[in-house]
Amino acid sequence: MSLAEFALIERIRARSKGRDDIVLGIGDDAALLQPLAGHWLAVTADTLNSGVHFPPETQPADIGWKTLAVNLSDLAAMGATPAWGTLALSLPSAEAEWIDAFADGFFALADAHDWRLIGGDTTRGPLSLSVTAFGQVPQGQALRRDGAQVGDDIWVSGTLGDAAAALQRWQGGALSVTDPAADADDELLRQRLLRPTPRVRLGIALRGIATAAVDVSDGLLADLGHIAARSGVAAHVDAALVPCSTSAERVIGREAARQCALSGGDDYELCFTAPPACREALAEIAARLSLTVTCIGRVVHGTGVHCPSALARQGYAHFS
Amino acid sequence: MSLAEFALIERIRARSKGRDDIVLGIGDDAALLQPLAGHWLAVTADTLNSGVHFPPETQPADIGWKTLAVNLSDLAAMGATPAWGTLALSLPSAEAEWIDAFADGFFALADAHDWRLIGGDTTRGPLSLSVTAFGQVPQGQALRRDGAQVGDDIWVSGTLGDAAAALQRWQGGALSVTDPAADADDELLRQRLLRPTPRVRLGIALRGIATAAVDVSDGLLADLGHIAARSGVAAHVDAALVPCSTSAERVIGREAARQCALSGGDDYELCFTAPPACREALAEIAARLSLTVTCIGRVVHGTGVHCPSALARQGYAHFS
Repeated sequence: MSLAEFALIERIRARSKGRDDIVLGIGDDAALLQPLAGHWLAVTADTLNSGVHFPPETQPADIGWKTLAVNLSDLAAMGATPAWGTLALSLPSAEAEWIDAFADGFFALADAHDWRLIGGDTTRGPLSLSVTAFGQVPQGQALRRDGAQVGDDIWVSGTLGDAAAALQRWQGGALSVTDPAADADDELLRQRLLRPTPRVRLGIALRGIATAAVDVSDGLLADLGHIAARSGVAAHVDAALVPCSTSAERVIGREAARQCALSGGDDYELCFTAPPACREALAEIAARLSLTVTCIGRVVHGTGVHCPSALARQGYAHFS
Repeated sequence: MSLAEFALIERIRARSKGRDDIVLGIGDDAALLQPLAGHWLAVTADTLNSGVHFPPETQPADIGWKTLAVNLSDLAAMGATPAWGTLALSLPSAEAEWIDAFADGFFALADAHDWRLIGGDTTRGPLSLSVTAFGQVPQGQALRRDGAQVGDDIWVSGTLGDAAAALQRWQGGALSVTDPAADADDELLRQRLLRPTPRVRLGIALRGIATAAVDVSDGLLADLGHIAARSGVAAHVDAALVPCSTSAERVIGREAARQCALSGGDDYELCFTAPPACREALAEIAARLSLTVTCIGRVVHGTGVHCPSALARQGYAHFS
């Protein structure tokens, strides 16, 4: 551990706030935490690598946000309340300016969810960011992938395909990840790619309602496939019902937007199953959270994800 | 997430055993754990990068062992009992042979301590391994860095400087990290570098006895400096008392071995403080664990680490 590393850690530690259940934060061999009685710990770990999970020129503040967002999204998909976590940061060089900007994005999201950084490590190397995030959920109330029942509705939050549409635009040279887009629709897509919103409040609200849940990180058909496989059921999706944003439809066209919605990843919406009897409760939750939830299909007997649409061929072939 | 990544995760998951307190292991958005009532969670995170933290030609089984060892060592320094953790693995390519050998070393140590892998992530990239490890310690009994009292003895476990001596031998071309050494002393040093033993049982035994503890990962004077700084005291070390192995003395000479013992890192022994009244209890613990503990100095008023020896100049200048 070089002195530069000490300085780096100190710079990050200065941004980490306290919480009553943090007995000891960053600065010892380990942090000490007081977990809630009667709760389970939910633990997830996700890594983002430059050039693989985000374009290399992505701004450090956006990298910071997304690094945490993908992990909080996993907690949301379990119905867990975010609590604490660690960050392993590999950096080519320790530039204070980069670190501060990264921390701006990272802690903006952390603070919004009362999530606290309680440890980590910084090393010299190609840019790579690994978070292990912990949340807490009352015993027996976690949203798992294996609880979907035949007859359940299949739901998704928000709109799907926006991040994939933005990536297409970036790959085609029509969108920059460093500068705001002049066009409002392009800018919305860009924000959806760079600053995804983990659906933490929705996940918590779905305790006792959803029978299974997953976050849409690899693409709807792929992620729904995990629910189907773990629950021992099949999922029937009506491609026409899968919600696309008007921005995506305007910018890349209706057909392409629909394809992105079915197979594109990185949206971090929740896909979940719930009995039809819960439709009214879900409508109330959606209204309370100002977040649309859309019923896109039904859980049936069988295996795999079935989406009888020409548009869904690719997803179908891969994941059912 | 590519299909190759699924296969890779499956290969690692197959090696992960269960535990009664794992409600849900690898395979959902997050794992679910049931923490012990009346205990604190101890959480630490350490990353090893190829070419920085170990020679690039290091065997995958040794990398696996050390990746976990450095984290369990942090838990040991808190007096925590290892429980679970996550692994973020960045690999240039997903070769089954490499993964299996890595898992051999990693799970050999994990199983020995009943520590369970409950999540993680694999990505394509330069070889890098990040573990976040959780342990549990009864409330109020954790070994922190900030509890050293004036008048306490300063102790270290085992011998120090062996890993640094091995590294010197490797840098000089006298030792290979891939092949056993013909000389028994060299082989002992090699094992100390490649397969450090986290002092988990000692850390647990020190609950209620040690007033402060740290693991020796950066070098004795540096790590003891953390205890001094956090406790608001000074540490006086008698360099002649710091325990070196006869192997290190034989192989690199007495003076060089002593320098390694003071400033060399990577030994993962524990350095701790305890009131003189605990000497008998410590002797009993050492006998029970078949592990030497050596009193090397005293906690005094002031700041910094004082080691009045020509050999300790470097450490003194850096850390006091």
